[in-house]
Amino acid sequence: MTTGHLIPGFDPADEAGSRSAPPGPAVPEPSHAERARTLVASQSRGALSTIALEPARTPFGSVVTYGLDARGRPAFFVSTLAEHTRNLDADDRASLLVVEDTPEGADPLASGRVTLVGTVGDVRDPDERAAARAGYLSANPAAFYVDYGDFRCLRLELTAVRYVGGFGRMSWVDPAAYAAAQPDPLAPAAPAIIGHMNADHADALVTLCHHHAARADIEAASMAAVDRYGFEVVAELAGDRREALRIGFRTAQVTSDGVRAELIGMLAEARAADPT
Amino acid sequence: MTTGHLIPGFDPADEAGSRSAPPGPAVPEPSHAERARTLVASQSRGALSTIALEPARTPFGSVVTYGLDARGRPAFFVSTLAEHTRNLDADDRASLLVVEDTPEGADPLASGRVTLVGTVGDVRDPDERAAARAGYLSANPAAFYVDYGDFRCLRLELTAVRYVGGFGRMSWVDPAAYAAAQPDPLAPAAPAIIGHMNADHADALVTLCHHHAARADIEAASMAAVDRYGFEVVAELAGDRREALRIGFRTAQVTSDGVRAELIGMLAEARAADPT
Repeated sequence: MTTGHLIPGFDPADEAGSRSAPPGPAVPEPSHAERARTLVASQSRGALSTIALEPARTPFGSVVTYGLDARGRPAFFVSTLAEHTRNLDADDRASLLVVEDTPEGADPLASGRVTLVGTVGDVRDPDERAAARAGYLSANPAAFYVDYGDFRCLRLELTAVRYVGGFGRMSWVDPAAYAAAQPDPLAPAAPAIIGHMNADHADALVTLCHHHAARADIEAASMAAVDRYGFEVVAELAGDRREALRIGFRTAQVTSDGVRAELIGMLAEARAADPT
Repeated sequence: MTTGHLIPGFDPADEAGSRSAPPGPAVPEPSHAERARTLVASQSRGALSTIALEPARTPFGSVVTYGLDARGRPAFFVSTLAEHTRNLDADDRASLLVVEDTPEGADPLASGRVTLVGTVGDVRDPDERAAARAGYLSANPAAFYVDYGDFRCLRLELTAVRYVGGFGRMSWVDPAAYAAAQPDPLAPAAPAIIGHMNADHADALVTLCHHHAARADIEAASMAAVDRYGFEVVAELAGDRREALRIGFRTAQVTSDGVRAELIGMLAEARAADPT
């Protein structure tokens, strides 16, 4: 239950996602719909592209803050005076670009990003507006202006979703699949899990690689990512080589405690198989 | 030579920049053209808005990295396969949104941002392409792909520039003024100057406020920003009140050493005027 490939230099030309599938059984991993939903849920600010009237019909990018509803549609509370609001009144087509946090010093093109494409309209139904307001305030707790008379509640109805992950992960995602997907429940806990594993359990990670990835040649490993279906490590091998590996959980996990129990179980399995 | 105003909650409705001018002589400060040039020069990644063919003529946002030429025009090295490249081949109208770094925990709508609006075309002239390549590599030193055969060098020719600073600074900037403006030469040194003044010279900042802002009521002050024309402080007053103040240099400064000498001179002037 692993895939291994040499860590590639991220190649922006690898648009088609044509990297060939690795041999062996597939390792469970989030779908692109799930990755896109998780990324959009992890942020509250994006770049809204609208069509400006002046200069004539030029695409115009501006900063917006957003909140999400249960189907992942972004809602905005915008000033009636803002450029994007005026643009949308004349042409409701728009997209929202959301970019994940880029670690200090990392290649800015290696960050994941999602473009939600569709049309923007006012949310008028009182129940829907209340839900949009709650979602917006949850993501933007300091948004004192939501109830101002000159602010409008708008929502993007999706017609297309573009996902670009790092390292050759990119595709158009079916908007219905995006709407049905759940953001990764482990995302808020992931930094703490990764920090804990790398600080206190680096040896265990090597043991997990040896058994669950069947890779006895791995000499050191650090966790780089974790999600509901498994985790990714950067492994070190002889000759200063490094390799990215994914190891799947035996069953999906939705809490930190679940991950902890699963890793202990997987470690026990590894040690039972090779007690040396 | 100061303006003072209570620190406002940033009001996204304050689109028109209608805050009334303070009384007294104007404090020298960067023009919006200079602020926009400085902000764009401080980053190397932005959100490019183009027009997608599918879904029909919808604005599409994507991530690009860029470098600048001497007139502040952004150049891009993009894959021929990328969505934005295909979009631009069908419609060359585009904009580039650049957002300044947002301090951890800060209001995401308080960050400055610039939208450069115009049309994108290939840079074909060999000398211009060499200059664009040099500017791009200067901003993106790890861009190994610039000489790949399936990458194209594109440049945005500006027809409009939108600047949104924090706290009610926003306007359309004349593209010619943007092109002629120089990025603030102090920008790279500003964090070190601010850190040094706040760590070692907090008392001097208060003295500078007393004399150069004629504000004897200020009890404490920290530097919040510095540019070629002066600096901004957050001042503390009795009753837990805080106020943002700008103090101008007597002459513009373009180096750290120049700022140091100017602040020592201004401090001597203040102490001579009030030797207590």
